[in-house]
Amino acid sequence: MPETRFKVDLTKKMDKQAVPGHNRWHPDIPAAFSVNPGESFRMECLDWTDGQIANNDDPSDIEHVDLDRVHVLSGPAHVNGVQPGDLLVVDILDVGAFQDHEWGFNGIFAKENGGGFLVDHFPNAQKSIWDFNGIYATSRHIPDVKFAGIIHPGLIGVAPSHELLAEWNRRETALVDEDPKRVPPLAELPNPESVVLGTLQGEEFNRVAKEGARTVPPRENGGNCDIKNLSRGSRIYFPVFVEGAKLSVGDLHFSQGDGEITFCGGIEMPGWIDLHVDVIKGGMDKYNILQNPVFQPGPMDPNYTEFLTFEGVSVDNTSGKQSYLDANIAYRNACLNAIDYLKTVGYTAEQAYMILGTAPIEGRVAGIVDIPNACCTVSIPTAIFNKDILPKKE
Amino acid sequence: MPETRFKVDLTKKMDKQAVPGHNRWHPDIPAAFSVNPGESFRMECLDWTDGQIANNDDPSDIEHVDLDRVHVLSGPAHVNGVQPGDLLVVDILDVGAFQDHEWGFNGIFAKENGGGFLVDHFPNAQKSIWDFNGIYATSRHIPDVKFAGIIHPGLIGVAPSHELLAEWNRRETALVDEDPKRVPPLAELPNPESVVLGTLQGEEFNRVAKEGARTVPPRENGGNCDIKNLSRGSRIYFPVFVEGAKLSVGDLHFSQGDGEITFCGGIEMPGWIDLHVDVIKGGMDKYNILQNPVFQPGPMDPNYTEFLTFEGVSVDNTSGKQSYLDANIAYRNACLNAIDYLKTVGYTAEQAYMILGTAPIEGRVAGIVDIPNACCTVSIPTAIFNKDILPKKE
Amino acid sequence: MPETRFKVDLTKKMDKQAVPGHNRWHPDIPAAFSVNPGESFRMECLDWTDGQIANNDDPSDIEHVDLDRVHVLSGPAHVNGVQPGDLLVVDILDVGAFQDHEWGFNGIFAKENGGGFLVDHFPNAQKSIWDFNGIYATSRHIPDVKFAGIIHPGLIGVAPSHELLAEWNRRETALVDEDPKRVPPLAELPNPESVVLGTLQGEEFNRVAKEGARTVPPRENGGNCDIKNLSRGSRIYFPVFVEGAKLSVGDLHFSQGDGEITFCGGIEMPGWIDLHVDVIKGGMDKYNILQNPVFQPGPMDPNYTEFLTFEGVSVDNTSGKQSYLDANIAYRNACLNAIDYLKTVGYTAEQAYMILGTAPIEGRVAGIVDIPNACCTVSIPTAIFNKDILPKKE
Amino acid sequence: MPETRFKVDLTKKMDKQAVPGHNRWHPDIPAAFSVNPGESFRMECLDWTDGQIANNDDPSDIEHVDLDRVHVLSGPAHVNGVQPGDLLVVDILDVGAFQDHEWGFNGIFAKENGGGFLVDHFPNAQKSIWDFNGIYATSRHIPDVKFAGIIHPGLIGVAPSHELLAEWNRRETALVDEDPKRVPPLAELPNPESVVLGTLQGEEFNRVAKEGARTVPPRENGGNCDIKNLSRGSRIYFPVFVEGAKLSVGDLHFSQGDGEITFCGGIEMPGWIDLHVDVIKGGMDKYNILQNPVFQPGPMDPNYTEFLTFEGVSVDNTSGKQSYLDANIAYRNACLNAIDYLKTVGYTAEQAYMILGTAPIEGRVAGIVDIPNACCTVSIPTAIFNKDILPKKE
Repeated sequence: MPETRFKVDLTKKMDKQAVPGHNRWHPDIPAAFSVNPGESFRMECLDWTDGQIANNDDPSDIEHVDLDRVHVLSGPAHVNGVQPGDLLVVDILDVGAFQDHEWGFNGIFAKENGGGFLVDHFPNAQKSIWDFNGIYATSRHIPDVKFAGIIHPGLIGVAPSHELLAEWNRRETALVDEDPKRVPPLAELPNPESVVLGTLQGEEFNRVAKEGARTVPPRENGGNCDIKNLSRGSRIYFPVFVEGAKLSVGDLHFSQGDGEITFCGGIEMPGWIDLHVDVIKGGMDKYNILQNPVFQPGPMDPNYTEFLTFEGVSVDNTSGKQSYLDANIAYRNACLNAIDYLKTVGYTAEQAYMILGTAPIEGRVAGIVDIPNACCTVSIPTAIFNKDILPKKE
Repeated sequence: MPETRFKVDLTKKMDKQAVPGHNRWHPDIPAAFSVNPGESFRMECLDWTDGQIANNDDPSDIEHVDLDRVHVLSGPAHVNGVQPGDLLVVDILDVGAFQDHEWGFNGIFAKENGGGFLVDHFPNAQKSIWDFNGIYATSRHIPDVKFAGIIHPGLIGVAPSHELLAEWNRRETALVDEDPKRVPPLAELPNPESVVLGTLQGEEFNRVAKEGARTVPPRENGGNCDIKNLSRGSRIYFPVFVEGAKLSVGDLHFSQGDGEITFCGGIEMPGWIDLHVDVIKGGMDKYNILQNPVFQPGPMDPNYTEFLTFEGVSVDNTSGKQSYLDANIAYRNACLNAIDYLKTVGYTAEQAYMILGTAPIEGRVAGIVDIPNACCTVSIPTAIFNKDILPKKE
Repeated sequence: MPETRFKVDLTKKMDKQAVPGHNRWHPDIPAAFSVNPGESFRMECLDWTDGQIANNDDPSDIEHVDLDRVHVLSGPAHVNGVQPGDLLVVDILDVGAFQDHEWGFNGIFAKENGGGFLVDHFPNAQKSIWDFNGIYATSRHIPDVKFAGIIHPGLIGVAPSHELLAEWNRRETALVDEDPKRVPPLAELPNPESVVLGTLQGEEFNRVAKEGARTVPPRENGGNCDIKNLSRGSRIYFPVFVEGAKLSVGDLHFSQGDGEITFCGGIEMPGWIDLHVDVIKGGMDKYNILQNPVFQPGPMDPNYTEFLTFEGVSVDNTSGKQSYLDANIAYRNACLNAIDYLKTVGYTAEQAYMILGTAPIEGRVAGIVDIPNACCTVSIPTAIFNKDILPKKE
Repeated sequence: MPETRFKVDLTKKMDKQAVPGHNRWHPDIPAAFSVNPGESFRMECLDWTDGQIANNDDPSDIEHVDLDRVHVLSGPAHVNGVQPGDLLVVDILDVGAFQDHEWGFNGIFAKENGGGFLVDHFPNAQKSIWDFNGIYATSRHIPDVKFAGIIHPGLIGVAPSHELLAEWNRRETALVDEDPKRVPPLAELPNPESVVLGTLQGEEFNRVAKEGARTVPPRENGGNCDIKNLSRGSRIYFPVFVEGAKLSVGDLHFSQGDGEITFCGGIEMPGWIDLHVDVIKGGMDKYNILQNPVFQPGPMDPNYTEFLTFEGVSVDNTSGKQSYLDANIAYRNACLNAIDYLKTVGYTAEQAYMILGTAPIEGRVAGIVDIPNACCTVSIPTAIFNKDILPKKE
């Protein structure tokens, strides 16, 4: 096991840890530790909500979750000798749950507090608890489902430069200004509430707290991309924007479906991740990797090969309004079609929604040019059910 | 080999075939033949453009293609005893090129005539010709690339009812009315130019030609979904809207990347498809399959497992404008990132674009809830290249 | 489609074809045609028995099959410029059944005429007929089974040199001499009965007929290796022993289980194969490929991933005799265990045996060092059954 | 994490553990603990040699290893209520290395002390040490190789009945009697040297020590089957021969190639395994699972799909002697061919042999009926090499 360079105590909030992590993106958050290219190390992580969700059957913690607190991240790690313009090469050697905390949660956020991809159909908070049995997950809240998790960090990224951070804040503020009162909001802007900034203090803390970008969206630095296939064995090439790269990680998922459609979102858990870092000097220009990470997926995902696939196109399913090649509507319809189907084989709509959020489902952009309809698909591995869910002639 | 129930002569246009097919959706297009549930049969197909594209190095045929003519479809097949409310179960037993026509084409449509997913970056017409060598495709226009095709019909669907057709025309007209002069247009409305309607003649022909929906988009009836994984061995469950279901098929692809991003679009070819049909009586209500087909993908896709994956988020890459969870922009950026990368390993931008359009690339909706950025990915199988395209340390 | 360089007429025996093939290995069998490195071409093939088996329910043709006649091969193809010491690089571009002959047969040979891997348990002739439905095979003789075939040539090889042929005859004669009256025999020695030798005639014919090695076993030249994964898209590197390599092919299988345990043996069919040839000059020494072909399997095998696996060890299951690390006994026991199991889910022993012979089962050497027992496994893909065959608690 | 029901201290030999395990099979070895059907639990394991091999570069510990000591097993676990005639259903939930012991060893045993599959070609002891980096293994003794391990217990089994034990001893003694002085021996018979028998003492110890079967071979009870695909997520159905089944486990491998050809043998390590047990009452007769376990492989093996495959047939490669359908010789030749090839791309013969023993190579019984030659194949995943090992034209 590589040396643990970032430790957490599950009984404490992130700001009370011996070396606190952070929950905003900012180049001036101090490094929690430093490593050399070629080194492997372990980082421990709290769950993304900083321990707000309990292992019980009551979704009120989901309903009232403090979203200013998310995502609590471990790091940043300063990688010695790495400069802006380089590519930081990060291998995800392994990811796991803590041995005394082998459960996770999935939640549907309430419309008033976060929402989700199908928020208009599922406006109320819900929760499912998942138990880990080795490689498998099961939930007492969702019967006859068991699957091998595709374990991964929902969030991994490097620090932005000051210029990049300013650009994020500019463009996201402009978006919010289009409809500032929207519920849920169009974006989360810098907000000093519930901020954690490592060891920063005093004036510096106040300044960075006001400027720091929220960790919710994925951006040029990677961040909260929630890519389920960025799992064990993957190699990521990050563009580097600051000296030392300042790599942070968190939001570990035992499993997640493509899209993370319930928002909360995969099977969320605290845990550990083993990383190896290296550098390609001057790699950003050499490989034109300027604005988002590139990666090679790992070789250890579950080998599910039989699927039931649902299609959706760009027509609003309640109003009948036709949109132009809108992949969001198409994917939403594919998900709603899947939920409608799963209701005929014994699940509630909420259970079906949470299956799509947690199991290793595949969400694809099938056709994106056939005006005016995009076609998206969502594919459910049939082997995750302990019963035959296929359509039958009799 | 099952009996060929729909034949084509490659030297003739679709309207000159012994039994013509059609290029519009309408319930009153007469069936070309009828089959019983439980039967297998072969249908031959022209390429989707009705033979407008030649095997040469000049893209002017792509530039000036008559898009009123597309898609020329084979059928419809009337399935005896099938009624609205049933599910039509269609097995794709096999698909192939004609033995004396083992090549296909991929094209980038010009902005003035069709456009494509990256039309603002690639406004001019381009063409690549692909030769089939057994299971493999190669192109004299794109060096060092060879892949096993994931052969499939880009378009397969059943006829709409009159009510459903009226709804299509209503909603698509409303969309076009939002910006009637847009180039390319927001949608293609019914248009009697270049119409082919099977054996219809006279008044009926004129009426149907005016009402018939264009075949370009996928809709409730399936249609032009362009799902690469709807390939050999797949089983599809179609909702049925008219007596006999009236199944049509065309737009065969030797291979295609998710999204079919160049629009023309996969590797387009004439060929044949062997189908088996069956019925689940009353299946639409029983399984809540009301508005789009559901399918089980086949077991014979190429086993590519090593990928290089590119991410994109919902920020316009030229203006820097932030959008709200826009998967289209995210997928477009993922594709542009991939193209930028491929330019560093020896391809022109146009070649890279056509690789993404033709090879079995995977396009995924990775995260669709992390406001304000959706995250989409495009994954290129590294084994399709005859050289190592991964980033290198030196 | 590449040019057909070897044609067959299914209504005629191999020796009556316009250009006959051959059914013995000998360097002096004249080439049927010649090709250049870099060329693709099609060869048509009769089934391995030269059309002795009929599509009916009577196994008497299997019982009385003339085994002196097998295998009738297409070729040899002379590859211009290829010399002993080179590697002949052969790509299997595609393989298929004839469109008017989409069925094949599997047979259990009688003990008195050929036998099979489980001959002591299945001494009598049996037959199953398999229908091809696109990529799938089904048999009216074996209910509730349907699988995607892993189509391949059971036999593909190059001609031996005179020296190599003499060595084959030496060592196989020595083996037969150990027990010359054994039924079935220990090996098939050169035998002028039913010989076909291309266009050879007169004295030459008589000489070669007496010397020519039987095609039954795989040897240094490839030959009848019956490797199911040597399927579409594979690339083979053959050591070359004679000028022009003299490549021959036949014994096409629509599908086969590892071991081809019923001997007749896979799903046997006539058909066609498209090949591409190239050469690595001096490759035998360069890569130490001196005595058997090496290959890269193709990327298009069926994606079955869920199996039920049976183990066997090196103890004779009737006598209880312990053998030393005998993988044959271990694999035989694994197969017998599988058959015993399949009898509990509705199959006769003969049906179960033929399932193992035809379906894409995996036969593995699991452990070969744990004295005195080898452990072999046979894995059956559960998706080939139209019912659930797994053990149940109730 | 399930409760640990069997603990080990890596600084102590198995007989000095708080609750010792055992290294012989005998029904009278007392259970170390008991569990109920439906329970999950963890068992910790020493490496199979009881800690005799050190993490250094000197193979003398391999050369002089005390083989009377192997395999030290954890357990047995008594499963309450399970009776002879039942099937014990065991799920392998997960397997792992200890966090402070993330390395393992592979050894070639000397001819005088154990030997291996290729003992005549590799008579001398050798050793390679493998470091675990998350899911990957690398060795300082074998450059340019890195692979995802397919982690599994080499040995898992239930206790024999007295009758079954007597039968084992009978048949194995008869084998040894055929050549009692052979080196290495034909089998290992009961031998009271270095015996560990749980908490047994005194007379009982002496009796059982004399009768207990060696753990080396796999047998009716499962045992040392060394099946690499019996990995994480697998479900095993064991026939039950004694009250409580008495399940034991050990010989954990981080990875292994089919055949475990170096004997010592995979990448050997101490570690832990999480199991879940259940029962099918009367299942042995119901499913004809009478003499060997049956299993469903897990869904999490590495997804390697590109291979270089070597063939071998039943002819001794030094003497030229022809054998009859001998799969052992065929597999040996396939392995020797692979080793000869790997020597041309930069490995010593010993390194190549250890690659075949440790990496997830596939060993198949391709053809087992084509008299007189069996054909076996060994397939090496090309992605395990950090360089291109395929044959090249120039």
